[in-house]
Amino acid sequence: MMERVAILGTGLLGTSVGLALRAAGFKGSIAGWNRSAEGAQVALTSGAIDSIAADPISAAREADVTILSVPIYATLDLMAQITMHMGGDHLVTDVGSTKLQITKAGTEYFNQVGCAAFLPGHPMAGKERGGAELGDAHLFRGAAWLFTDAPGAVRTPRGEELIGNWRAWVAEMGSKVIDLDAARHDELVAWVSHLPQFTATALSALLESEVGDAPELKDVGGRALREMTRLGASPFSMWRDIAHTNTEAIAAALEALEQSLAHIRENLRTPALRDEFEKANRFRRE
Amino acid sequence: MMERVAILGTGLLGTSVGLALRAAGFKGSIAGWNRSAEGAQVALTSGAIDSIAADPISAAREADVTILSVPIYATLDLMAQITMHMGGDHLVTDVGSTKLQITKAGTEYFNQVGCAAFLPGHPMAGKERGGAELGDAHLFRGAAWLFTDAPGAVRTPRGEELIGNWRAWVAEMGSKVIDLDAARHDELVAWVSHLPQFTATALSALLESEVGDAPELKDVGGRALREMTRLGASPFSMWRDIAHTNTEAIAAALEALEQSLAHIRENLRTPALRDEFEKANRFRRE
Repeated sequence: MMERVAILGTGLLGTSVGLALRAAGFKGSIAGWNRSAEGAQVALTSGAIDSIAADPISAAREADVTILSVPIYATLDLMAQITMHMGGDHLVTDVGSTKLQITKAGTEYFNQVGCAAFLPGHPMAGKERGGAELGDAHLFRGAAWLFTDAPGAVRTPRGEELIGNWRAWVAEMGSKVIDLDAARHDELVAWVSHLPQFTATALSALLESEVGDAPELKDVGGRALREMTRLGASPFSMWRDIAHTNTEAIAAALEALEQSLAHIRENLRTPALRDEFEKANRFRRE
Repeated sequence: MMERVAILGTGLLGTSVGLALRAAGFKGSIAGWNRSAEGAQVALTSGAIDSIAADPISAAREADVTILSVPIYATLDLMAQITMHMGGDHLVTDVGSTKLQITKAGTEYFNQVGCAAFLPGHPMAGKERGGAELGDAHLFRGAAWLFTDAPGAVRTPRGEELIGNWRAWVAEMGSKVIDLDAARHDELVAWVSHLPQFTATALSALLESEVGDAPELKDVGGRALREMTRLGASPFSMWRDIAHTNTEAIAAALEALEQSLAHIRENLRTPALRDEFEKANRFRRE
């Protein structure tokens, strides 16, 4: 059974994991570590964690399951740091938005004789702003939680048991567990997650330049405008590592959208515009 | 006082105007006409109108205020049809999404000696699907209702009175009344309304082509995807006339977004990406 959890990084996702575990009935201990003491304190006060760990290594060593919930490069750094302090009776998992590099690092640093088990994970949930203050026990309800386990992992029976435990807790938190190849994951989320974000950023940045100072603007914009630019509030700090670790797939998706927009622009007065609307309608049909 | 209203076109907007007038306490008569008898019947059953008119001309002639709530080209057709049957004791207004052509037609067909008054209007409210079934008494609450009255209109005191009445009812329905030059209106909505719509259409159509048949797709997409593609459900029939009557402004906005996306694509790994995120953040700040 999973009894001791460590959450490394108590931002929006880490804090929400702690709150969601408690809401789902987890009775064990939850230690938290955060780069800034302030974020850890907020998580403690909210009940997401019940103790603040002095450092990530001791937190992970004392836990059955360690959840890395920091940006992608920080996740890779922590993986390299903690692995040598942990044996086969531990599980390490993460919540990073791109999975190819993290899954490869999992094979390199974990999932070998004498090492802790590593299970790469990605809950498809978030908010346009981060921080422990926004932690939400229901954040993962109804969301997909993707795992991109690599083939050939060497794990102890205890490691396998903890993987089963963690997958069950993810389901208890209300998520739908889906297994996916890591490369396929990164390609798919480039389309369904990263492209929508960069589109909202491009649209918001453009509108800021073009009409940001129009006095009528604040009154005139309706629901469509608010909705299509909500993600414009997403901070660079959350997206930099995603752009760096899934560059080619994101660039391909952006270029395809540029072409799709140009096609519409060139056909505003031709029947081809109808085809684009009907194709868009089909995407929303189910 | 405005006592008799005619709503020509009982789709989503027309039906919502009737329901909103009733919810705001309007006690007069509301006659409705619709190209398809079925839509008129739904509006009647919902209480948005209290009688179905046989034809648009008699409906308008018997009303103090006639609201044209049909697509833009149909609005221009109705304006040409009804004007010769109405005198200076009438007001005609509309709810069309582009205003330059309708405002010009208002000067040509109305607002002259012996003619009814015309006040071009545009409530910034709607849904991604149309139809009387979706009529909503609260649709205009908190929305801007733009008027693009042309200078130099010739109106009777009764015409002016009805304009005052209609503006007051619009405010009673919960909208914020804003006056704007028609050309400026069309330029502004190209950015804040039409560009978001065509972006959602382009994104949805692209995703339908690229990942529409991916088995994991329906589960994996989160709130960001749903939100950025909701308007993909908008029907071509609602947008064709907008594309035709505001083509240049929409094309300019689309081309600017293509460039904004290309700029992000070329800078996924450079510090310029931060600038785009920060500009987007500023747009969402207030």
